[in-house]
Amino acid sequence: MEQTPDPLARFRTATAAREAAGLRRTLRARTPDDDGLVDLASNDYLGLARDARVAQAAVAATLAWGTGSTGSRLVTGSTALHARLEAALCGFTGAEGALVFSSGYLANLAAVAALAGPGTLVVSEAGNHASIVDACRLSRSRVVVTPHKDVTAVEKALADREEEHAIVVTDAVFSVDGDLAPVGELHAAAVRQGALLVVDEAHALGVIGPEGRGAVYGAGLAGERAIVRTVTLSKSLGAQGGAVLGAPEVIETLVDTGRSFIFDTGLAPGSVAAALAALDILRTQPELPELVRTRAEELAAMARGLGLETGEPAGAVVPIVLGRPETALRAAAICTEHGVRAGCFRPPSVPVGRSCLRLTARANLSSDDLAVIRGALTAVAEMKVSM
Amino acid sequence: MEQTPDPLARFRTATAAREAAGLRRTLRARTPDDDGLVDLASNDYLGLARDARVAQAAVAATLAWGTGSTGSRLVTGSTALHARLEAALCGFTGAEGALVFSSGYLANLAAVAALAGPGTLVVSEAGNHASIVDACRLSRSRVVVTPHKDVTAVEKALADREEEHAIVVTDAVFSVDGDLAPVGELHAAAVRQGALLVVDEAHALGVIGPEGRGAVYGAGLAGERAIVRTVTLSKSLGAQGGAVLGAPEVIETLVDTGRSFIFDTGLAPGSVAAALAALDILRTQPELPELVRTRAEELAAMARGLGLETGEPAGAVVPIVLGRPETALRAAAICTEHGVRAGCFRPPSVPVGRSCLRLTARANLSSDDLAVIRGALTAVAEMKVSM
Repeated sequence: MEQTPDPLARFRTATAAREAAGLRRTLRARTPDDDGLVDLASNDYLGLARDARVAQAAVAATLAWGTGSTGSRLVTGSTALHARLEAALCGFTGAEGALVFSSGYLANLAAVAALAGPGTLVVSEAGNHASIVDACRLSRSRVVVTPHKDVTAVEKALADREEEHAIVVTDAVFSVDGDLAPVGELHAAAVRQGALLVVDEAHALGVIGPEGRGAVYGAGLAGERAIVRTVTLSKSLGAQGGAVLGAPEVIETLVDTGRSFIFDTGLAPGSVAAALAALDILRTQPELPELVRTRAEELAAMARGLGLETGEPAGAVVPIVLGRPETALRAAAICTEHGVRAGCFRPPSVPVGRSCLRLTARANLSSDDLAVIRGALTAVAEMKVSM
Repeated sequence: MEQTPDPLARFRTATAAREAAGLRRTLRARTPDDDGLVDLASNDYLGLARDARVAQAAVAATLAWGTGSTGSRLVTGSTALHARLEAALCGFTGAEGALVFSSGYLANLAAVAALAGPGTLVVSEAGNHASIVDACRLSRSRVVVTPHKDVTAVEKALADREEEHAIVVTDAVFSVDGDLAPVGELHAAAVRQGALLVVDEAHALGVIGPEGRGAVYGAGLAGERAIVRTVTLSKSLGAQGGAVLGAPEVIETLVDTGRSFIFDTGLAPGSVAAALAALDILRTQPELPELVRTRAEELAAMARGLGLETGEPAGAVVPIVLGRPETALRAAAICTEHGVRAGCFRPPSVPVGRSCLRLTARANLSSDDLAVIRGALTAVAEMKVSM
């Protein structure tokens, strides 16, 4: 009998190749003991994921509504809590409408794929998050990728288009480099060219703009109807999920045609309530966003003072560029040895040659924490010099 | 000054067209009062979303670990709870490895897109869930869509391929029609043709197979290494999220290259704990899956007895085919008036002309519930006759 090939063999080959290139990844489960490490790796920018008020809200919602939403948002997956969160997101960001998803990834897929399509050009910037890249692929639109923060290239792509319609899509704060998109200029170009602008505020909500209302709000554009925003509930809000913010026309379109909205189970009530409680805290403690930005500037200044490569952070994200994947891995290990948990980003999360530590500031970093961090970054700088 | 076009105008036009076609959708937020309705719309097949033991597990995890996982699974989003759930899913389904996602949608995207690609043919069946269709689009593979449950067409597509590699992907229980895929025959065809088989057990886990271990397990194929399974945690397990089950080669590939795994925030600890508790209940109450199947058969027999169109349910899903969208909407309204919440599925969720009520059985439907349901379905049948 003829031997058929093993369909798993090619995965073993590819895994061995990634191993040789320093691109294997290991899942490391956090334990309660890990809490001894200073966390500079999470996206819990305001420290709300462990906030007792947020936890109590999640607990109460779980007991009142159950552990799951039990179905698609359009069938049984919408509770009164979801509606309250959507109203609260509108209130906080100045958006006309909001739609909550179970993940920011799925919110981006819907925001781009359902609003674009054949006949609509999508102009996507090179630094955009993977979920936006996937959304572009799903849109079936022609997609033009423009260089990082190049508004001229965006406007040229819009002006040169043959499609009647167009969408420009950008991260507000880029997830690894941590810099800010030129939202105001992009909006002006989009208006001139009759295009819709989609801004992913994942790393901006709760961090950027007055009281953390985001980059669009900070640019004075919260009232602009031709801007769609996406947010995550899993970063500064300490919960899980995402949302699309926009005009009623946009929300209605997503409700009727957004595949990753219609065909996904609604967000669990506990996560909805946690995000609601976090928004409440942002209203009563409006100083938190500025605190996290100050902490990020301190981290960046510390790194530069030690001779490490980083830029001026716009929000909470402070990348330390190290080059090769092995160097980044070694630096992350050194941080752990010195009591600091740092993110380690390698291709495909960053371009080849740009492997880095990704440090994220938190509003609740103490001066003791900063001393521990200084020790860790000093050791990283010494390692780099000795290589 | 020249007036630039309003980029929102086309959405108003399209929404008006959907309105005219009876394809608008309305988000209705459940309130605690809704509990007076008999739920035949959710995917809470075992009634575990409101189970006190599941809720207590979610509460304890939220208090111990926080309201969010705080980052990507590869950075800070994996806790010891995630690892325990992955081990428990392996134990329950007989899979070698498991990887938990924040949504079943994202699990399907990774399972197909990361395991396929240029050089790999994807054979996807016509009835597959939207998340699989999107995954096929993201894969950049050539995709052949085969007719519903047509194993001959699958094998022909595999045999005729020019690509070296191939993946066959199917729902186990189809989400609207409720029928079962020919998993055993598909596996045999895949083996003959050197292809990997991906089976989405979203509506099968907890319902199909011995003790609800799923369709692959039920077909005696749990030990087959060239089968990848995906599951949701948001249906029979009453929580939120999804998982991919497979050989270590598969799990390693997804950890290193699965975009919707790497670039998404990990599942919230409360949801992880809820799914774990639900799996525990399935072990201690192994009669639940058979109960839900019996209830589904009773619902189908009741509908047929009233002259309504339905098939033989394989699991919990009992569709009542009504044809036009307006008829399905009217039938759903009649159900509500008679105390029953039923799902109403219209294009694009179902093919044109196949709008339906989608009834889902639950293990904890009482005989009182069944009497209420009989009243509702009788009224639907009378409406249909009078049209």
